[in-house]
Amino acid sequence: MKKKPLILLVNDDGILSPGLRFLIKLCKKLARVYVVAPTQDRSGRSHAITVEEKITFKKIINSEFYSEYSCSGTPVDCVKLAINRICKEKPDLCISGINHGANYSISTLYSATLHAAIEGTILGVNSIAISHLNYSNKIDMYSYQDYLLSMIKYFLINKIETGVTLNINLPDIKFDKIKGVKLCRQGKGKWIEKISSIGKENECSITGHFLAEEDSNDTDIWALENSYVSIVPIKIDMTNYDFIKSNKKLENELFKG
Amino acid sequence: MKKKPLILLVNDDGILSPGLRFLIKLCKKLARVYVVAPTQDRSGRSHAITVEEKITFKKIINSEFYSEYSCSGTPVDCVKLAINRICKEKPDLCISGINHGANYSISTLYSATLHAAIEGTILGVNSIAISHLNYSNKIDMYSYQDYLLSMIKYFLINKIETGVTLNINLPDIKFDKIKGVKLCRQGKGKWIEKISSIGKENECSITGHFLAEEDSNDTDIWALENSYVSIVPIKIDMTNYDFIKSNKKLENELFKG
Repeated sequence: MKKKPLILLVNDDGILSPGLRFLIKLCKKLARVYVVAPTQDRSGRSHAITVEEKITFKKIINSEFYSEYSCSGTPVDCVKLAINRICKEKPDLCISGINHGANYSISTLYSATLHAAIEGTILGVNSIAISHLNYSNKIDMYSYQDYLLSMIKYFLINKIETGVTLNINLPDIKFDKIKGVKLCRQGKGKWIEKISSIGKENECSITGHFLAEEDSNDTDIWALENSYVSIVPIKIDMTNYDFIKSNKKLENELFKG
Repeated sequence: MKKKPLILLVNDDGILSPGLRFLIKLCKKLARVYVVAPTQDRSGRSHAITVEEKITFKKIINSEFYSEYSCSGTPVDCVKLAINRICKEKPDLCISGINHGANYSISTLYSATLHAAIEGTILGVNSIAISHLNYSNKIDMYSYQDYLLSMIKYFLINKIETGVTLNINLPDIKFDKIKGVKLCRQGKGKWIEKISSIGKENECSITGHFLAEEDSNDTDIWALENSYVSIVPIKIDMTNYDFIKSNKKLENELFKG
Protein backbone atom coordinates (compact mmCIF):
# COMPACT_ATOMS: atom_id res chain seq x y z
CA MET A 1 0.00 0.00 0.00
CA LYS A 2 1.32 3.44 -0.90
CA LYS A 3 2.37 5.53 2.08
CA LYS A 4 0.30 8.63 2.78
CA PRO A 5 2.06 11.83 1.70
CA LEU A 6 3.82 13.98 4.30
CA ILE A 7 2.97 17.65 4.89
CA LEU A 8 5.11 20.01 6.98
CA LEU A 9 3.19 22.89 8.58
CA VAL A 10 4.76 26.06 9.94
CA ASN A 11 3.55 29.58 10.65
CA ASP A 12 4.66 32.87 12.18
CA ASP A 13 1.73 33.59 14.49
CA GLY A 14 2.85 30.84 16.87
CA ILE A 15 1.90 27.25 17.53
CA LEU A 16 -1.43 28.04 19.19
CA SER A 17 -2.70 30.29 16.41
CA PRO A 18 -6.24 29.37 15.20
CA GLY A 19 -5.16 29.71 11.54
CA LEU A 20 -2.54 26.99 12.04
CA ARG A 21 -4.93 24.79 14.07
CA PHE A 22 -7.50 25.04 11.23
CA LEU A 23 -4.85 24.05 8.68
CA ILE A 24 -3.75 21.09 10.83
CA LYS A 25 -7.34 19.74 10.82
CA LEU A 26 -7.52 20.00 7.03
CA CYS A 27 -4.12 18.44 6.35
CA LYS A 28 -4.76 15.49 8.68
CA LYS A 29 -7.57 14.47 6.30
CA LEU A 30 -5.07 14.18 3.42
CA ALA A 31 -1.66 13.30 4.78
CA ARG A 32 0.68 12.53 7.60
CA VAL A 33 1.50 15.85 9.24
CA TYR A 34 4.49 17.37 11.00
CA VAL A 35 3.98 20.75 12.68
CA VAL A 36 7.09 22.71 13.65
CA ALA A 37 6.00 26.19 14.69
CA PRO A 38 7.30 29.05 16.83
CA THR A 39 6.56 29.01 20.56
CA GLN A 40 5.44 32.65 20.34
CA ASP A 41 4.21 35.15 17.78
CA ARG A 42 7.04 35.82 15.31
CA SER A 43 5.19 38.05 12.85
CA GLY A 44 7.32 40.39 10.73
CA ARG A 45 10.47 38.27 11.12
CA SER A 46 10.93 37.96 7.34
CA HIS A 47 13.78 35.56 6.45
CA ALA A 48 15.52 36.03 9.82
CA ILE A 49 17.56 33.15 11.23
CA THR A 50 19.04 32.67 14.68
CA VAL A 51 22.79 33.02 14.31
CA GLU A 52 25.16 31.52 16.87
CA GLU A 53 22.50 31.43 19.57
CA LYS A 54 20.76 28.50 21.19
CA ILE A 55 17.45 27.30 19.71
CA THR A 56 15.19 25.24 21.96
CA PHE A 57 12.55 22.91 20.57
CA LYS A 58 9.95 20.82 22.36
CA LYS A 59 8.15 17.66 21.30
CA ILE A 60 4.44 18.00 22.00
CA ILE A 61 3.12 14.97 20.09
CA ASN A 62 5.01 12.33 18.12
CA SER A 63 2.84 9.61 16.65
CA GLU A 64 2.69 7.64 13.40
CA PHE A 65 0.48 10.09 11.54
CA TYR A 66 0.85 13.33 13.47
CA SER A 67 3.78 15.06 15.17
CA GLU A 68 3.95 18.51 16.68
CA TYR A 69 6.96 20.49 17.90
CA SER A 70 7.31 24.05 19.16
CA CYS A 71 10.54 25.96 18.56
CA SER A 72 12.01 29.06 20.19
CA GLY A 73 13.50 30.28 16.89
CA THR A 74 12.17 32.20 13.92
CA PRO A 75 9.79 30.65 11.34
CA VAL A 76 12.77 30.10 9.00
CA ASP A 77 14.63 28.33 11.84
CA CYS A 78 11.54 26.10 12.29
CA VAL A 79 11.70 25.03 8.65
CA LYS A 80 15.47 24.39 8.76
CA LEU A 81 15.09 22.36 11.94
CA ALA A 82 12.07 20.46 10.60
CA ILE A 83 13.57 19.45 7.25
CA ASN A 84 17.16 18.88 8.44
CA ARG A 85 16.42 17.19 11.74
CA ILE A 86 12.87 16.58 12.96
CA CYS A 87 11.08 15.08 9.93
CA LYS A 88 12.01 11.44 9.35
CA GLU A 89 11.71 11.90 5.58
CA LYS A 90 11.52 14.83 3.16
CA PRO A 91 8.01 16.37 3.19
CA ASP A 92 5.97 16.30 -0.03
CA LEU A 93 4.61 19.76 0.70
CA CYS A 94 5.38 22.58 3.13
CA ILE A 95 2.53 24.96 3.97
CA SER A 96 3.08 28.11 6.02
CA GLY A 97 0.03 29.70 7.64
CA ILE A 98 -2.79 30.26 7.66
CA ASN A 99 -1.63 33.71 8.68
CA HIS A 100 -4.02 36.08 10.42
CA GLY A 101 -3.39 39.15 8.26
CA ALA A 102 -2.38 40.23 4.76
CA ASN A 103 0.95 39.33 3.15
CA TYR A 104 0.82 40.87 -0.31
CA SER A 105 2.49 43.77 -2.16
CA ILE A 106 5.46 45.20 -0.20
CA SER A 107 4.66 42.90 2.76
CA THR A 108 6.28 40.16 0.66
CA LEU A 109 9.55 41.45 2.12
CA TYR A 110 8.45 41.54 5.79
CA SER A 111 6.29 38.43 6.01
CA ALA A 112 7.72 35.51 7.96
CA THR A 113 4.74 33.41 6.84
CA LEU A 114 5.95 33.75 3.27
CA HIS A 115 9.67 33.51 4.07
CA ALA A 116 9.20 30.27 6.03
CA ALA A 117 7.72 28.83 2.83
CA ILE A 118 10.59 30.31 0.77
CA GLU A 119 13.01 28.45 3.09
CA GLY A 120 11.07 25.26 2.32
CA THR A 121 11.65 25.96 -1.39
CA ILE A 122 15.37 26.60 -0.78
CA LEU A 123 15.59 23.21 0.96
CA GLY A 124 14.00 21.52 -2.04
CA VAL A 125 10.42 21.09 -0.80
CA ASN A 126 7.29 22.16 -2.71
CA SER A 127 6.19 25.15 -0.63
CA ILE A 128 3.25 27.55 -0.37
CA ALA A 129 2.26 30.31 2.07
CA ILE A 130 -1.40 31.04 2.87
CA SER A 131 -2.59 34.27 4.51
CA HIS A 132 -6.09 35.55 5.27
CA LEU A 133 -6.59 39.31 5.00
CA ASN A 134 -8.35 39.57 8.36
CA TYR A 135 -5.89 40.20 11.22
CA SER A 136 -8.22 38.97 13.97
CA ASN A 137 -7.53 35.63 15.63
CA LYS A 138 -11.30 35.16 15.82
CA ILE A 139 -11.96 35.14 12.08
CA ASP A 140 -13.92 32.08 10.95
CA MET A 141 -12.10 30.41 8.03
CA TYR A 142 -14.56 27.52 7.84
CA SER A 143 -16.13 28.60 4.55
CA TYR A 144 -12.74 28.03 2.85
CA GLN A 145 -12.49 24.43 4.10
CA ASP A 146 -13.45 22.54 0.92
CA TYR A 147 -11.60 24.98 -1.30
CA LEU A 148 -8.38 24.66 0.68
CA LEU A 149 -8.69 20.88 0.83
CA SER A 150 -8.83 20.68 -2.96
CA MET A 151 -5.97 23.19 -3.30
CA ILE A 152 -3.76 21.18 -0.95
CA LYS A 153 -4.68 17.97 -2.79
CA TYR A 154 -3.69 19.70 -6.05
CA PHE A 155 -0.24 20.67 -4.73
CA LEU A 156 0.33 17.17 -3.32
CA ILE A 157 -0.13 15.81 -6.85
CA ASN A 158 1.32 18.63 -8.96
CA LYS A 159 4.87 19.72 -8.12
CA ILE A 160 5.50 23.46 -8.20
CA GLU A 161 8.43 24.44 -10.44
CA THR A 162 11.80 24.11 -8.63
CA GLY A 163 12.81 27.35 -6.90
CA VAL A 164 9.30 28.87 -6.91
CA THR A 165 7.23 29.56 -3.77
CA LEU A 166 3.54 30.43 -4.08
CA ASN A 167 2.33 33.36 -1.97
CA ILE A 168 -1.42 32.89 -1.56
CA ASN A 169 -3.70 35.50 0.03
CA LEU A 170 -7.41 34.98 0.78
CA PRO A 171 -9.66 38.07 0.70
CA ASP A 172 -11.59 38.98 3.84
CA ILE A 173 -14.92 37.62 2.57
CA LYS A 174 -16.72 34.28 2.90
CA PHE A 175 -15.77 31.77 0.22
CA ASP A 176 -19.14 31.92 -1.58
CA LYS A 177 -18.35 35.54 -2.54
CA ILE A 178 -15.01 34.61 -4.18
CA LYS A 179 -14.93 35.27 -7.94
CA GLY A 180 -11.92 33.12 -8.75
CA VAL A 181 -8.13 32.80 -8.51
CA LYS A 182 -5.65 35.28 -10.03
CA LEU A 183 -2.06 34.33 -10.73
CA CYS A 184 -0.57 37.79 -10.42
CA ARG A 185 2.47 39.93 -9.70
CA GLN A 186 3.45 41.66 -6.45
CA GLY A 187 1.76 45.09 -6.68
CA LYS A 188 3.50 48.33 -5.73
CA GLY A 189 2.58 49.67 -2.30
CA LYS A 190 4.12 50.91 0.91
CA TRP A 191 3.57 51.14 4.64
CA ILE A 192 2.98 54.63 5.98
CA GLU A 193 4.74 54.43 9.30
CA LYS A 194 3.77 55.95 12.58
CA ILE A 195 6.45 56.09 15.24
CA SER A 196 4.75 56.52 18.61
CA SER A 197 6.57 57.35 21.80
CA ILE A 198 5.77 54.96 24.63
CA GLY A 199 6.41 56.17 28.12
CA LYS A 200 9.93 57.59 27.98
CA GLU A 201 11.05 59.80 25.09
CA ASN A 202 13.53 57.22 23.80
CA GLU A 203 11.04 54.35 23.75
CA CYS A 204 8.77 53.92 20.77
CA SER A 205 6.75 51.50 18.71
CA ILE A 206 6.52 51.42 14.93
CA THR A 207 3.06 50.81 13.49
CA GLY A 208 1.65 51.67 10.10
CA HIS A 209 -1.06 51.39 7.51
CA PHE A 210 -0.74 50.04 3.99
CA LEU A 211 -1.01 52.35 0.99
CA ALA A 212 -1.49 50.80 -2.46
CA GLU A 213 0.52 52.66 -5.12
CA GLU A 214 -1.16 51.09 -8.14
CA ASP A 215 -4.31 49.18 -9.02
CA SER A 216 -3.37 47.49 -12.29
CA ASN A 217 -5.47 44.33 -12.75
CA ASP A 218 -2.43 42.04 -12.95
CA THR A 219 -1.45 42.72 -9.32
CA ASP A 220 -2.23 41.02 -6.01
CA ILE A 221 -3.59 44.37 -4.79
CA TRP A 222 -6.25 44.41 -7.52
CA ALA A 223 -7.10 40.71 -7.18
CA LEU A 224 -7.74 40.95 -3.43
CA GLU A 225 -9.75 44.17 -3.73
CA ASN A 226 -11.88 42.50 -6.40
CA SER A 227 -12.76 39.31 -4.50
CA TYR A 228 -10.16 37.00 -6.04
CA VAL A 229 -7.74 34.70 -4.24
CA SER A 230 -4.28 36.04 -5.21
CA ILE A 231 -1.35 33.77 -6.00
CA VAL A 232 2.05 35.40 -6.59
CA PRO A 233 4.92 33.11 -7.64
CA ILE A 234 8.02 34.22 -5.73
CA LYS A 235 11.66 33.99 -6.87
CA ILE A 236 14.71 33.40 -4.72
CA ASP A 237 16.82 35.43 -7.15
CA MET A 238 16.39 39.14 -6.28
CA THR A 239 18.60 40.43 -9.14
CA ASN A 240 17.32 43.35 -11.21
CA TYR A 241 18.38 42.16 -14.69
CA ASP A 242 17.19 45.31 -16.50
CA PHE A 243 19.51 47.40 -14.33
CA ILE A 244 22.50 45.21 -15.27
CA LYS A 245 21.74 45.62 -18.99
CA SER A 246 21.47 49.40 -18.86
CA ASN A 247 24.25 50.16 -16.36
CA LYS A 248 27.29 48.19 -17.56
CA LYS A 249 29.25 51.50 -17.62
CA LEU A 250 29.20 51.39 -13.80
CA GLU A 251 31.98 48.77 -13.96
CA ASN A 252 34.35 51.34 -15.50
CA GLU A 253 33.07 54.33 -13.58
CA LEU A 254 33.68 52.55 -10.28
CA PHE A 255 37.10 51.19 -11.19
CA LYS A 256 39.48 53.39 -13.07
CA GLY A 257 42.15 50.65 -12.79
CA MET B 1 27.33 78.02 0.47
CA LYS B 2 25.84 74.67 -0.43
CA LYS B 3 25.10 72.42 2.51
CA LYS B 4 27.21 69.27 2.82
CA PRO B 5 25.32 66.12 1.78
CA LEU B 6 23.85 63.84 4.43
CA ILE B 7 24.76 60.14 4.76
CA LEU B 8 22.86 57.68 6.94
CA LEU B 9 24.92 54.74 8.18
CA VAL B 10 23.51 51.49 9.53
CA ASN B 11 24.78 47.93 9.93
CA ASP B 12 23.84 44.58 11.43
CA ASP B 13 27.02 43.74 13.34
CA GLY B 14 26.17 46.36 15.98
CA ILE B 15 27.18 49.93 16.70
CA LEU B 16 30.68 49.07 17.95
CA SER B 17 31.63 46.95 14.92
CA PRO B 18 35.01 47.92 13.38
CA GLY B 19 33.53 47.79 9.85
CA LEU B 20 31.00 50.48 10.77
CA ARG B 21 33.60 52.58 12.62
CA PHE B 22 35.84 52.47 9.53
CA LEU B 23 32.94 53.58 7.33
CA ILE B 24 32.10 56.43 9.73
CA LYS B 25 35.66 57.77 9.40
CA LEU B 26 35.43 57.72 5.60
CA CYS B 27 31.97 59.30 5.37
CA LYS B 28 32.87 62.13 7.77
CA LYS B 29 35.40 63.29 5.15
CA LEU B 30 32.61 63.71 2.58
CA ALA B 31 29.36 64.50 4.34
CA ARG B 32 27.34 65.13 7.46
CA VAL B 33 26.71 61.73 8.99
CA TYR B 34 23.91 60.09 11.00
CA VAL B 35 24.60 56.65 12.44
CA VAL B 36 21.61 54.63 13.66
CA ALA B 37 22.80 51.12 14.40
CA PRO B 38 21.74 48.15 16.51
CA THR B 39 22.88 48.01 20.13
CA GLN B 40 23.96 44.38 19.60
CA ASP B 41 24.91 42.01 16.80
CA ARG B 42 21.82 41.47 14.62
CA SER B 43 23.37 39.36 11.87
CA GLY B 44 21.01 37.14 9.87
CA ARG B 45 17.92 39.21 10.72
CA SER B 46 17.05 39.72 7.03
CA HIS B 47 14.13 42.16 6.59
CA ALA B 48 12.77 41.52 10.11
CA ILE B 49 10.91 44.30 11.88
CA THR B 50 9.81 44.62 15.49
CA VAL B 51 6.04 44.26 15.54
CA GLU B 52 3.99 45.62 18.43
CA GLU B 53 6.91 45.59 20.81
CA LYS B 54 8.84 48.46 22.36
CA ILE B 55 11.96 49.74 20.59
CA THR B 56 14.46 51.68 22.68
CA PHE B 57 16.94 54.07 21.13
CA LYS B 58 19.74 56.07 22.72
CA LYS B 59 21.42 59.29 21.61
CA ILE B 60 25.18 58.91 21.89
CA ILE B 61 26.31 62.04 19.99
CA ASN B 62 24.20 64.77 18.39
CA SER B 63 26.22 67.58 16.81
CA GLU B 64 26.00 69.69 13.66
CA PHE B 65 28.00 67.35 11.45
CA TYR B 66 27.82 64.04 13.25
CA SER B 67 25.09 62.21 15.18
CA GLU B 68 25.09 58.69 16.52
CA TYR B 69 22.22 56.63 17.95
CA SER B 70 21.99 53.02 19.08
CA CYS B 71 18.72 51.15 18.75
CA SER B 72 17.42 47.95 20.36
CA GLY B 73 15.56 46.91 17.19
CA THR B 74 16.57 45.14 14.00
CA PRO B 75 18.66 46.81 11.26
CA VAL B 76 15.44 47.48 9.29
CA ASP B 77 13.91 49.10 12.41
CA CYS B 78 17.03 51.30 12.63
CA VAL B 79 16.47 52.57 9.08
CA LYS B 80 12.74 53.18 9.64
CA LEU B 81 13.48 55.06 12.86
CA ALA B 82 16.34 57.03 11.30
CA ILE B 83 14.49 58.21 8.18
CA ASN B 84 11.05 58.71 9.79
CA ARG B 85 12.15 60.21 13.07
CA ILE B 86 15.81 60.78 13.92
CA CYS B 87 17.27 62.42 10.79
CA LYS B 88 16.28 66.10 10.49
CA GLU B 89 16.18 65.84 6.69
CA LYS B 90 16.07 63.01 4.14
CA PRO B 91 19.56 61.49 3.69
CA ASP B 92 21.24 61.74 0.27
CA LEU B 93 22.66 58.25 0.67
CA CYS B 94 22.16 55.31 3.02
CA ILE B 95 25.07 52.89 3.42
CA SER B 96 24.75 49.64 5.35
CA GLY B 97 27.95 47.99 6.55
CA ILE B 98 30.75 47.42 6.23
CA ASN B 99 29.71 43.93 7.19
CA HIS B 100 32.26 41.47 8.52
CA GLY B 101 31.37 38.53 6.31
CA ALA B 102 29.99 37.62 2.89
CA ASN B 103 26.51 38.59 1.71
CA TYR B 104 26.24 37.23 -1.83
CA SER B 105 24.38 34.41 -3.62
CA ILE B 106 21.64 32.88 -1.41
CA SER B 107 22.77 35.04 1.55
CA THR B 108 20.94 37.87 -0.22
CA LEU B 109 17.84 36.51 1.54
CA TYR B 110 19.34 36.23 5.05
CA SER B 111 21.52 39.33 5.19
CA ALA B 112 20.31 42.14 7.43
CA THR B 113 23.17 44.30 6.09
CA LEU B 114 21.57 44.14 2.66
CA HIS B 115 17.96 44.33 3.88
CA ALA B 116 18.66 47.47 5.95
CA ALA B 117 19.78 49.08 2.67
CA ILE B 118 16.69 47.70 0.87
CA GLU B 119 14.56 49.42 3.53
CA GLY B 120 16.38 52.67 2.72
CA THR B 121 15.41 52.15 -0.93
CA ILE B 122 11.77 51.46 0.05
CA LEU B 123 11.77 54.76 1.97
CA GLY B 124 13.03 56.61 -1.10
CA VAL B 125 16.72 56.97 -0.24
CA ASN B 126 19.62 56.03 -2.53
CA SER B 127 20.93 52.92 -0.75
CA ILE B 128 23.88 50.53 -0.93
CA ALA B 129 25.12 47.65 1.23
CA ILE B 130 28.83 46.88 1.59
CA SER B 131 30.20 43.58 2.92
CA HIS B 132 33.74 42.27 3.22
CA LEU B 133 34.21 38.53 2.70
CA ASN B 134 36.33 38.12 5.83
CA TYR B 135 34.21 37.33 8.92
CA SER B 136 36.83 38.44 11.45
CA ASN B 137 36.32 41.67 13.35
CA LYS B 138 40.08 42.14 13.14
CA ILE B 139 40.33 42.35 9.36
CA ASP B 140 42.15 45.48 8.18
CA MET B 141 40.04 47.28 5.57
CA TYR B 142 42.46 50.18 5.27
CA SER B 143 43.68 49.28 1.76
CA TYR B 144 40.11 49.94 0.47
CA GLN B 145 40.01 53.46 1.92
CA ASP B 146 40.62 55.51 -1.25
CA TYR B 147 38.54 53.17 -3.37
CA LEU B 148 35.56 53.38 -1.02
CA LEU B 149 35.90 57.16 -0.74
CA SER B 150 35.62 57.55 -4.49
CA MET B 151 32.73 55.05 -4.66
CA ILE B 152 30.80 56.93 -1.96
CA LYS B 153 31.52 60.24 -3.74
CA TYR B 154 30.17 58.67 -6.95
CA PHE B 155 26.88 57.64 -5.30
CA LEU B 156 26.48 61.05 -3.66
CA ILE B 157 26.57 62.61 -7.15
CA ASN B 158 24.88 59.88 -9.22
CA LYS B 159 21.44 58.73 -8.05
CA ILE B 160 20.79 54.99 -8.25
CA GLU B 161 17.62 54.13 -10.19
CA THR B 162 14.48 54.36 -8.00
CA GLY B 163 13.65 51.03 -6.34
CA VAL B 164 17.13 49.53 -6.82
CA THR B 165 19.54 48.68 -3.98
CA LEU B 166 23.17 47.83 -4.73
CA ASN B 167 24.58 44.81 -2.92
CA ILE B 168 28.37 45.27 -2.92
CA ASN B 169 30.80 42.59 -1.72
CA LEU B 170 34.57 43.07 -1.37
CA PRO B 171 36.79 39.99 -1.83
CA ASP B 172 39.05 38.94 1.02
CA ILE B 173 42.22 40.38 -0.54
CA LYS B 174 44.05 43.70 -0.24
CA PHE B 175 42.81 46.33 -2.67
CA ASP B 176 45.96 46.30 -4.84
CA LYS B 177 45.09 42.72 -5.89
CA ILE B 178 41.57 43.71 -7.09
CA LYS B 179 41.08 43.25 -10.85
CA GLY B 180 38.00 45.42 -11.22
CA VAL B 181 34.27 45.72 -10.55
CA LYS B 182 31.62 43.32 -11.91
CA LEU B 183 27.98 44.30 -12.15
CA CYS B 184 26.50 40.82 -11.84
CA ARG B 185 23.58 38.64 -10.90
CA GLN B 186 22.95 36.74 -7.66
CA GLY B 187 24.57 33.34 -8.25
CA LYS B 188 22.96 30.04 -7.27
CA GLY B 189 24.24 28.53 -4.04
CA LYS B 190 23.07 27.12 -0.74
CA TRP B 191 24.04 26.71 2.88
CA ILE B 192 24.77 23.15 3.98
CA GLU B 193 23.39 23.18 7.47
CA LYS B 194 24.71 21.52 10.56
CA ILE B 195 22.35 21.22 13.48
CA SER B 196 24.39 20.63 16.62
CA SER B 197 22.93 19.64 19.95
CA ILE B 198 24.04 21.89 22.80
CA GLY B 199 23.78 20.51 26.28
CA LYS B 200 20.26 19.12 26.44
CA GLU B 201 18.81 17.02 23.60
CA ASN B 202 16.22 19.65 22.72
CA GLU B 203 18.69 22.53 22.52
CA CYS B 204 20.63 23.11 19.34
CA SER B 205 22.42 25.64 17.19
CA ILE B 206 22.24 25.90 13.42
CA THR B 207 25.52 26.60 11.64
CA GLY B 208 26.55 25.92 8.08
CA HIS B 209 28.95 26.31 5.22
CA PHE B 210 28.24 27.85 1.82
CA LEU B 211 28.18 25.71 -1.30
CA ALA B 212 28.27 27.43 -4.71
CA GLU B 213 25.98 25.69 -7.22
CA GLU B 214 27.32 27.43 -10.33
CA ASP B 215 30.37 29.37 -11.45
CA SER B 216 29.07 31.23 -14.49
CA ASN B 217 31.12 34.41 -15.04
CA ASP B 218 28.08 36.71 -14.78
CA THR B 219 27.49 35.84 -11.09
CA ASP B 220 28.64 37.39 -7.81
CA ILE B 221 30.13 33.97 -6.92
CA TRP B 222 32.48 34.07 -9.93
CA ALA B 223 33.36 37.76 -9.50
CA LEU B 224 34.41 37.32 -5.87
CA GLU B 225 36.37 34.13 -6.56
CA ASN B 226 38.19 35.93 -9.36
CA SER B 227 39.29 39.03 -7.41
CA TYR B 228 36.55 41.41 -8.52
CA VAL B 229 34.34 43.62 -6.36
CA SER B 230 30.79 42.30 -7.00
CA ILE B 231 27.80 44.62 -7.36
CA VAL B 232 24.36 43.00 -7.64
CA PRO B 233 21.40 45.34 -8.26
CA ILE B 234 18.51 44.13 -6.07
CA LYS B 235 14.76 44.41 -6.79
CA ILE B 236 11.97 44.89 -4.27
CA ASP B 237 9.61 42.97 -6.56
CA MET B 238 10.11 39.23 -5.94
CA THR B 239 7.60 38.07 -8.58
CA ASN B 240 8.63 35.26 -10.93
CA TYR B 241 7.21 36.62 -14.21
CA ASP B 242 8.18 33.58 -16.29
CA PHE B 243 6.12 31.37 -14.00
CA ILE B 244 3.05 33.59 -14.49
CA LYS B 245 3.39 33.38 -18.28
CA SER B 246 3.65 29.60 -18.38
CA ASN B 247 1.17 28.70 -15.62
CA LYS B 248 -1.97 30.71 -16.37
CA LYS B 249 -3.93 27.43 -16.38
CA LEU B 250 -3.47 27.33 -12.59
CA GLU B 251 -6.24 29.94 -12.31
CA ASN B 252 -8.78 27.45 -13.70
CA GLU B 253 -7.28 24.37 -12.09
CA LEU B 254 -7.53 25.97 -8.65
CA PHE B 255 -11.04 27.38 -9.12
CA LYS B 256 -13.60 25.25 -10.84
CA GLY B 257 -16.24 27.97 -10.20
